[in-house]
Amino acid sequence: MSDKKTALILSAHAADFVWRCGGAIAKHEEMGYDVTVACMSFGERGESAKLWKQEGMTLDKVKTARRKEAEAAASALGITNIEFFDLGDYPLEFDRDDKYKVVDLIRKVQPNFMMSHSRFDQYNTDHMHMTQIAMETRMIAQAWGHNPGEKVLGAPQLYLFEPHQTEQMGWKPNVFLDITDVWDKKRAAIECMQGQEHLWKYYTNVAENRGNHFRRNSGGMAGGRPAQYAEGFESVYPTCVDEL
Amino acid sequence: MSDKKTALILSAHAADFVWRCGGAIAKHEEMGYDVTVACMSFGERGESAKLWKQEGMTLDKVKTARRKEAEAAASALGITNIEFFDLGDYPLEFDRDDKYKVVDLIRKVQPNFMMSHSRFDQYNTDHMHMTQIAMETRMIAQAWGHNPGEKVLGAPQLYLFEPHQTEQMGWKPNVFLDITDVWDKKRAAIECMQGQEHLWKYYTNVAENRGNHFRRNSGGMAGGRPAQYAEGFESVYPTCVDEL
Amino acid sequence: MSDKKTALILSAHAADFVWRCGGAIAKHEEMGYDVTVACMSFGERGESAKLWKQEGMTLDKVKTARRKEAEAAASALGITNIEFFDLGDYPLEFDRDDKYKVVDLIRKVQPNFMMSHSRFDQYNTDHMHMTQIAMETRMIAQAWGHNPGEKVLGAPQLYLFEPHQTEQMGWKPNVFLDITDVWDKKRAAIECMQGQEHLWKYYTNVAENRGNHFRRNSGGMAGGRPAQYAEGFESVYPTCVDEL
Amino acid sequence: MSDKKTALILSAHAADFVWRCGGAIAKHEEMGYDVTVACMSFGERGESAKLWKQEGMTLDKVKTARRKEAEAAASALGITNIEFFDLGDYPLEFDRDDKYKVVDLIRKVQPNFMMSHSRFDQYNTDHMHMTQIAMETRMIAQAWGHNPGEKVLGAPQLYLFEPHQTEQMGWKPNVFLDITDVWDKKRAAIECMQGQEHLWKYYTNVAENRGNHFRRNSGGMAGGRPAQYAEGFESVYPTCVDEL
Amino acid sequence: MSDKKTALILSAHAADFVWRCGGAIAKHEEMGYDVTVACMSFGERGESAKLWKQEGMTLDKVKTARRKEAEAAASALGITNIEFFDLGDYPLEFDRDDKYKVVDLIRKVQPNFMMSHSRFDQYNTDHMHMTQIAMETRMIAQAWGHNPGEKVLGAPQLYLFEPHQTEQMGWKPNVFLDITDVWDKKRAAIECMQGQEHLWKYYTNVAENRGNHFRRNSGGMAGGRPAQYAEGFESVYPTCVDEL
Amino acid sequence: MSDKKTALILSAHAADFVWRCGGAIAKHEEMGYDVTVACMSFGERGESAKLWKQEGMTLDKVKTARRKEAEAAASALGITNIEFFDLGDYPLEFDRDDKYKVVDLIRKVQPNFMMSHSRFDQYNTDHMHMTQIAMETRMIAQAWGHNPGEKVLGAPQLYLFEPHQTEQMGWKPNVFLDITDVWDKKRAAIECMQGQEHLWKYYTNVAENRGNHFRRNSGGMAGGRPAQYAEGFESVYPTCVDEL
Repeated sequence: MSDKKTALILSAHAADFVWRCGGAIAKHEEMGYDVTVACMSFGERGESAKLWKQEGMTLDKVKTARRKEAEAAASALGITNIEFFDLGDYPLEFDRDDKYKVVDLIRKVQPNFMMSHSRFDQYNTDHMHMTQIAMETRMIAQAWGHNPGEKVLGAPQLYLFEPHQTEQMGWKPNVFLDITDVWDKKRAAIECMQGQEHLWKYYTNVAENRGNHFRRNSGGMAGGRPAQYAEGFESVYPTCVDEL
Repeated sequence: MSDKKTALILSAHAADFVWRCGGAIAKHEEMGYDVTVACMSFGERGESAKLWKQEGMTLDKVKTARRKEAEAAASALGITNIEFFDLGDYPLEFDRDDKYKVVDLIRKVQPNFMMSHSRFDQYNTDHMHMTQIAMETRMIAQAWGHNPGEKVLGAPQLYLFEPHQTEQMGWKPNVFLDITDVWDKKRAAIECMQGQEHLWKYYTNVAENRGNHFRRNSGGMAGGRPAQYAEGFESVYPTCVDEL
Repeated sequence: MSDKKTALILSAHAADFVWRCGGAIAKHEEMGYDVTVACMSFGERGESAKLWKQEGMTLDKVKTARRKEAEAAASALGITNIEFFDLGDYPLEFDRDDKYKVVDLIRKVQPNFMMSHSRFDQYNTDHMHMTQIAMETRMIAQAWGHNPGEKVLGAPQLYLFEPHQTEQMGWKPNVFLDITDVWDKKRAAIECMQGQEHLWKYYTNVAENRGNHFRRNSGGMAGGRPAQYAEGFESVYPTCVDEL
Repeated sequence: MSDKKTALILSAHAADFVWRCGGAIAKHEEMGYDVTVACMSFGERGESAKLWKQEGMTLDKVKTARRKEAEAAASALGITNIEFFDLGDYPLEFDRDDKYKVVDLIRKVQPNFMMSHSRFDQYNTDHMHMTQIAMETRMIAQAWGHNPGEKVLGAPQLYLFEPHQTEQMGWKPNVFLDITDVWDKKRAAIECMQGQEHLWKYYTNVAENRGNHFRRNSGGMAGGRPAQYAEGFESVYPTCVDEL
Repeated sequence: MSDKKTALILSAHAADFVWRCGGAIAKHEEMGYDVTVACMSFGERGESAKLWKQEGMTLDKVKTARRKEAEAAASALGITNIEFFDLGDYPLEFDRDDKYKVVDLIRKVQPNFMMSHSRFDQYNTDHMHMTQIAMETRMIAQAWGHNPGEKVLGAPQLYLFEPHQTEQMGWKPNVFLDITDVWDKKRAAIECMQGQEHLWKYYTNVAENRGNHFRRNSGGMAGGRPAQYAEGFESVYPTCVDEL
Repeated sequence: MSDKKTALILSAHAADFVWRCGGAIAKHEEMGYDVTVACMSFGERGESAKLWKQEGMTLDKVKTARRKEAEAAASALGITNIEFFDLGDYPLEFDRDDKYKVVDLIRKVQPNFMMSHSRFDQYNTDHMHMTQIAMETRMIAQAWGHNPGEKVLGAPQLYLFEPHQTEQMGWKPNVFLDITDVWDKKRAAIECMQGQEHLWKYYTNVAENRGNHFRRNSGGMAGGRPAQYAEGFESVYPTCVDEL
């Protein structure tokens, strides 16, 4: 294990990390973090409509295509490590072994912070299930009696990244991250998502408008920082500080 | 105006700042902040039972005694500036002029952060009224058309400090501040509150237990920082950051 | 002041106490409580449509008619004391003196419990305003510095009685009171409300269905008590007990 | 009073109606509604930073400029009637007479639906205060004893239009309106707001992304309607229907 | 598949659809919808106390009796199709195959709207589990990769019908449906439920009181529609409209 | 089955009952209740860090040690019966048979009240899972068709005891129990927990501060009862009473 800071993204489907935290990934990689993305599924059944409309499509072909897109996006973002758990989607389900594999990864990465989906999602129950698993596996990784002798996990923050219809999910961002410097990388990653071109403009708009929120909350017309693009996150746990 | 960082505490009654954020005040003063505390009332009617039980007590005597205690506590904490608005308590009410005086102070201090009470308090409506006024006056202080020519306010965080029965008020801390280094000052300030000796032990317990929360949330048994005393705060606004 | 137990109902309009807590009043009077009802207004503007549809109606005539109905209902319930503050309705507003008159009454009654409206009411802002005042005046009545020498208030429970469309107001009952024994009195009081005959059946249905909730929550098919009529209340404050 | 359907927008500051419901206004005007917009203030103090940065600016000049912009925008949207109450902003306050003037307007318009701000706004307390007044004046307008003889109000829906940082305010849209056909008008109205050019792109992004939400919620990839622009609203009251 | 509009009710136990949405079913059938009711269990273990109190009762006999009652009620309501999944109750559990059977039905019906229970039910966890499955299976039915070639689902509304103790479950109706015209059918269906006679009066009261809410919310004393009976529903998803 | 009153505590891990409701147990035992504690696991993996840090530790040794501590604590509290389900922890999972074993115990005990954890716990998902199971098994125990012939359960209250970081879990106590008389027993039980000495002071502080809350809510300075130690609980169901 290196001395570098690390982060771990737990993503229900292959593309989620691009739209929702691609900027955070690129930015922290530039700052020297090793960021690991774990995709529990490829989104092969539920988020690949465009592929399924093609003649002769099969599950394997969809998975392969989705994996390629995700790897290309990961590369555009400079991601250190991307892993595919291939657990299936719609629905995404975890048995005890699956949970332990997630725990293994958490312990291997020893993340300074973790990321996952919103707590609730009535449009996409895979998302909220992933978040429950994120909390559960974080807890198991902290247990001294789980694989005794391994390095146990500390208490990394769990950030919830932006869901598609924020207000419906009751997601409320309490942290905005300036991603202006790495926007080009995020946009490049977005453009790797050939199957979901209808979302390119959407998430560009989101990034621009979160930039506005960053400016307002950092001082507005009386000294706000001129961020052009930003991402929002909701923290699950309190933070511990030495200065307010 | 100096170049020092500043903070502004808006407190409904004279003693609130001691129990609820005395550690934060002492710590930031030590870090070089100029902290201003504004007490809207002395808590003369509603929080001075012990004094009122004495023979021959009058409103003026109570105010004087409460002011003295608050000034002694402020001194123990190293507070730069303490102001008394003397608006009366139980109930605490603000007319437009009162609001503008608060705005004047906010603009004079130009705080890096502000503090006030919880959003809701069914035991003490003065507290929640103060918080509404804190949000309203923060907004007015940001208005370019209010006393044009004055330096308008940026977008300082508003922290809500710990109310007496946290769960009843729906107050949820999302930031813990380590106050171990300045605990002696906070305890000294607490002991200035002669009229409320029944609360000394109570708020010492709170500080110890928040220390436990600090340790847990900073890593617990696997590397948490050994804070002995802490204070918790709830942020009203999102924060803007460059690193998660 | 007698040694009898007492209760105080703070009602925005003259008729509210009948529909919402008539059973509780009658029952506690039968148990030996002295119950005082304070009607802040007669509901003369907003809750007297039937009267206003008559030829030649005036505000004074409406008030007189409403007062008579309320007194008749109070008599049917065996109420010890009913007071009319005549503060006007739609909107109901309180200045500082009005608040102090409510405080005077609270201190005079020294209630074992208080009652008022739901916290929120988007149909009837008088109701939620009354509840805010109930919390504020309860607090002032507890202040040793308010009219020093008077007996200060302890910490009576504040029950919120049932609003008209419970789910819209976010009102959640946590106490059900069996009013089977006094149902005849409540029905008689209801029938005093000549101007709102359209509500007689409605609140009879409510009482019957709350009876069902009483049966279910006291044991259901496996031993629930056969209450036929009940009323529900939401407590604002925790209760202090010696047995769970 | 004509037989046309009507709508009434209650807006705290002069420009709010443009960003937040300009599409709804234009669309309903095209459908034959008479839409009335009532601006309680010009936003002269709090939302005119650009003007106040100019030399020699005065309150009257700001008001005049803001009024002109609002009238131009109203004209671009085809608004039937725009009224300015000139009550001042930052803070916006209402005495009893001000409330009655709003009631007079509500009764004159007899709206099929009303619109106002979100319930909560910790950035802009004028907004949430306006919404409280909207609920209170709607209630007074329904009172048969208020100006007896006037036509009383029925039970129009109150829609809450989109605030600036939706998640912070706890605003949750439950209705999306397709404004594709009238987008050009809304954009033209937006461009009348010379003093707030930094918001043009922002609210265009919002309209585009709400268009995406409209498509998803009307059927998504399996038959959703291809709306390009939409607006979202939160209903305060339940709706009454004959078909689900 | 016909061109008729369709609706699908997902009901945890056999009788739920009668009390909670019998009026909606009858009304939409009269309007030409084909309504399908799917009962996941017969409520044989948990909602058949009266039967179990009889001598010599067996699980099969209870199921048979409950099925007969449900079919009789379905017939009284004019239901097009009723299906029994026989998954067991108390607790009701779904494995992946069970979920897929529900998905098959959803796709077969292609409902214009769906219905199920409240989100939360601390009295009856089968109910809230059913609602989670309703959201999850709706999502799977929308997945292009689930049984490729089948017609995928659009985005039908999911209405949550009225639970037994609404306030305890946090259920909030935002739509009221007038069922006056079909009340006789609903009452006839209710009377098919021989085993739960104690609920006949209860749900008649509910229908009458929801009728009052319909009248109030459609205009009250100033023009509300004189509905005598109504049902309330909570929408999970926003609606997409062309007129407010 | 005796005629004594009974209570049942459902605890995820072996030590939970000591910190969170040891006072309630001791007090009710003194009042003549038979209290049963059921520990689903020993907390062997997740709550035994101190043991796991010792050389040569094994799962069985940890379980044995934890069991001994729990039995010693149970003895100090005078518990009638303690049972260990040994289902494992981190994560704690229940299959259908496990649920039925809990149901068997509930029916055997026929508790006057039950106790379990908070509804939500993002630090410890075992806790919230236990609470879901408590609600589910309570429901099954009420089913006349589950093991017909057995005595079915009535409707005992389910109290949620105090979690470690109350505000994070959204736990809100609505009942305070005076445990002053039995504090010595609780403290003795606490001291049996050799492996978690860091929590002794913490939960003593909690008991003292809840004592303050008891005093305040029973009358404060104007007649509150001088409780020195208390415990708080949140009720899941409404209570049924004959006097408010």
